[in-house]
Amino acid sequence: MPEGLSPRIEALLSEVAGVEAETDPVLVRLKSRDCYWYSPVLKTQLDGKRGEVVIRPRDEAQVLEVLAACVRHRIPVVPRGGGTGNHGQAVPLAGGVILDMTAMERILSFEDGIAEIEAGATLMQVDAWARHQGWELRLWPSTKRTATVGGFVGGGGVGIGGIAHGTLREPGNLAGVTIATMEASPRLRTLNWGEAAAVNHCFGTTGVITRVRLPLAPAMAWRDIAVSFPDFASAAAFGLALGMADGIPKKMCAVIDWPLPSYFKGLAELLPEGRPIVLAMVGPGAMGAVADLAAAHGGEIECEQDFAAAEATPELTPFYEFTWNHTTMQVLKRDQGVTYLQLLFPPGRTLEAVAAIRERFVDEMWMHTEVARFGGQVTMSALPIVRWTTRERLWEIIAACEAEGVAVANPHVYTLEQDACWTLVGADRLAFKRAVDPLGLLNPGKMTSFTRAPGKEPVA
Amino acid sequence: MPEGLSPRIEALLSEVAGVEAETDPVLVRLKSRDCYWYSPVLKTQLDGKRGEVVIRPRDEAQVLEVLAACVRHRIPVVPRGGGTGNHGQAVPLAGGVILDMTAMERILSFEDGIAEIEAGATLMQVDAWARHQGWELRLWPSTKRTATVGGFVGGGGVGIGGIAHGTLREPGNLAGVTIATMEASPRLRTLNWGEAAAVNHCFGTTGVITRVRLPLAPAMAWRDIAVSFPDFASAAAFGLALGMADGIPKKMCAVIDWPLPSYFKGLAELLPEGRPIVLAMVGPGAMGAVADLAAAHGGEIECEQDFAAAEATPELTPFYEFTWNHTTMQVLKRDQGVTYLQLLFPPGRTLEAVAAIRERFVDEMWMHTEVARFGGQVTMSALPIVRWTTRERLWEIIAACEAEGVAVANPHVYTLEQDACWTLVGADRLAFKRAVDPLGLLNPGKMTSFTRAPGKEPVA
Repeated sequence: MPEGLSPRIEALLSEVAGVEAETDPVLVRLKSRDCYWYSPVLKTQLDGKRGEVVIRPRDEAQVLEVLAACVRHRIPVVPRGGGTGNHGQAVPLAGGVILDMTAMERILSFEDGIAEIEAGATLMQVDAWARHQGWELRLWPSTKRTATVGGFVGGGGVGIGGIAHGTLREPGNLAGVTIATMEASPRLRTLNWGEAAAVNHCFGTTGVITRVRLPLAPAMAWRDIAVSFPDFASAAAFGLALGMADGIPKKMCAVIDWPLPSYFKGLAELLPEGRPIVLAMVGPGAMGAVADLAAAHGGEIECEQDFAAAEATPELTPFYEFTWNHTTMQVLKRDQGVTYLQLLFPPGRTLEAVAAIRERFVDEMWMHTEVARFGGQVTMSALPIVRWTTRERLWEIIAACEAEGVAVANPHVYTLEQDACWTLVGADRLAFKRAVDPLGLLNPGKMTSFTRAPGKEPVA
Repeated sequence: MPEGLSPRIEALLSEVAGVEAETDPVLVRLKSRDCYWYSPVLKTQLDGKRGEVVIRPRDEAQVLEVLAACVRHRIPVVPRGGGTGNHGQAVPLAGGVILDMTAMERILSFEDGIAEIEAGATLMQVDAWARHQGWELRLWPSTKRTATVGGFVGGGGVGIGGIAHGTLREPGNLAGVTIATMEASPRLRTLNWGEAAAVNHCFGTTGVITRVRLPLAPAMAWRDIAVSFPDFASAAAFGLALGMADGIPKKMCAVIDWPLPSYFKGLAELLPEGRPIVLAMVGPGAMGAVADLAAAHGGEIECEQDFAAAEATPELTPFYEFTWNHTTMQVLKRDQGVTYLQLLFPPGRTLEAVAAIRERFVDEMWMHTEVARFGGQVTMSALPIVRWTTRERLWEIIAACEAEGVAVANPHVYTLEQDACWTLVGADRLAFKRAVDPLGLLNPGKMTSFTRAPGKEPVA
């Protein structure tokens, strides 16, 4: 045993000796972080937070064994996938165990278009497997290469595919999960369809996801296209029109203001200076219709490529890796003086609201929107790049957006309750939390509205 | 030659002696009709209208040969597919040739998800062929068994699949057509993507469609389901919610008020007395999500079946054959005292508008809506069954619907200009008409705003 481990961790490790564990402080510190550092606010709050040990179970039996020991010793547990979250989802606030799920990566079954997958498989693995069967993931994040299915359900849920299928919260996009509970005698529970809402985007506070059942879509041979426009308004109008064009199969449509494309390594050199662009993934047979639509908005198709070939070729970048929060990452690689926001524009007046926000903050914000469906309606979300000055200024911008009728999913907070999507954690979720984690040991500090059941206080 | 043929027809037939032709008066009369008789108004206006000869070309060369002869003799030509239109699309108003396209039914190519098909193939043939390749039609009418692809483009354009892909007019749903012109020297012209709007739903007035290029969708093993509800409002709310549920793959969703289901032969006996129903086609893996959604609206899933098996089994009826205008047909089989309307409810206040119309006319209208996408938005169209009294009363109902903000595509008119979708035939289409049919010989009387070029009056 390395020095410096607390007695409770030493006791735990001796009880689960058959499970892979890592106590090297450097590695534990690495696995205590996620991508919260995109936010200067979270960086201040979360830097230095760390767990005490990384435990990496290989199957559900080992998960239950570890959780049982953690309950006995009142040790907090933070489930972790690829660590790609931007909200500190995987950052332990109270030490304890980091439960690294990445050894559990099998695909267990596939029937009626629904794949059952162990939580630690990466979305890239699952999509590659699916394509061999003629299917594909409905949704994936821009971090597809490293993000896991369990992490996507627990801490993500939007991204590429949202223009066709909406988010992971739309009915039908999540067929179910299996979780391990944090009861005195931990057990597996199966949650189907609507029941799975109890763990969807709950940061692992309501059970450790061990399996995910994902409905897939029939595979398409998507084409990556980059279209440039004389101005942002034309690009945005084209993007929304493409989103509304129900006859054009599409997987993605990002509207990206200049100078953001100049930061895109491997793509920038193919694009004209000074022109906003749209990056999209469209059906291979629809290029003619897309060309018509682009021309009607003053657009020029600058380049296209086969998405799957680009994804499989180390020298190439599939265009989705320039979208969603990868846009931000591409800029952060060269300029650490920026951060970002997450906005959702009201359907029906999407373009007006985008223009209003863009014009108001033109000196400190570079606009980047994503066309997506929410609640059955096509609109745009945005991940604009914001010049970082102070937390106060960021909160002013957020307030101004909200005053404009634009919803803000603040990416500079780390609790479920502060997240705009979760201003209230519903009573049904609280009841579920109390049932599956009565001691409040799962990712403590992330669901702040939870209070432990009387007489259930954890002992130190 | 049978007696009674006009000299111009006799001359024509001698010049195209190698092409299949039918002059038997009974058969010519049969092929001079379509399904306009769903409308008592059109029945009065169109009964007795007939062509003089049915000519059935086997390839494009024969089409051009026939059209050239018709131009020489100034003989009108009415292209005809399955004769399933409800607007008198295929009823000759000025005699002449009925150009029966049903011998041209080959599938010519398939690439990048786009099938090129001769105009006379039935949608059933094409869908059956497509399913063998793992694809399917995006859209088909309830008359899929007999309607042709050319007829669907020329005189139809909405139906099953509209809930996923919108209508045939949405960008991307029609990759192109080939037409034969009615110029002095008829020739083939290829119209791609947006160019094809010049013939889309033009009743054959702007060229004889010989080939259609249809983008297909990856095939799904659709489940037919029937769900009953305690009242119409719950059924409609479920239908719209299903339409909005982007995570549930679906091909169709019809909301059908009681007593309409009692008219559905082979299905009525499986349904509870007195309850409105929703008939839907959903993805096989989505039944759990659909059941959740149905339960949330007080619905009971009454029966389900495999759509493809039902379509292939003579004793069974796929549920789509109870929807769109087949709902009307099922009632007309037993009650000739009814007719129907075609309404389009405004997105954003769909359910309110449906309820307003239903309640206002509850004594003479049975409501039947179809959830579909129009212009990128989910809403409902309706084909309500209306008790027939007089034309004046029907026009009163139409005016009342329009006053309520509900668009009416009046199915009791036979010209493009009276059709609500075509109140104005655009200048670009008129210019196209003048170019391809300068003598106005193609389906004359259907595009009334067309005037012949000076000095181009046809000779009798």
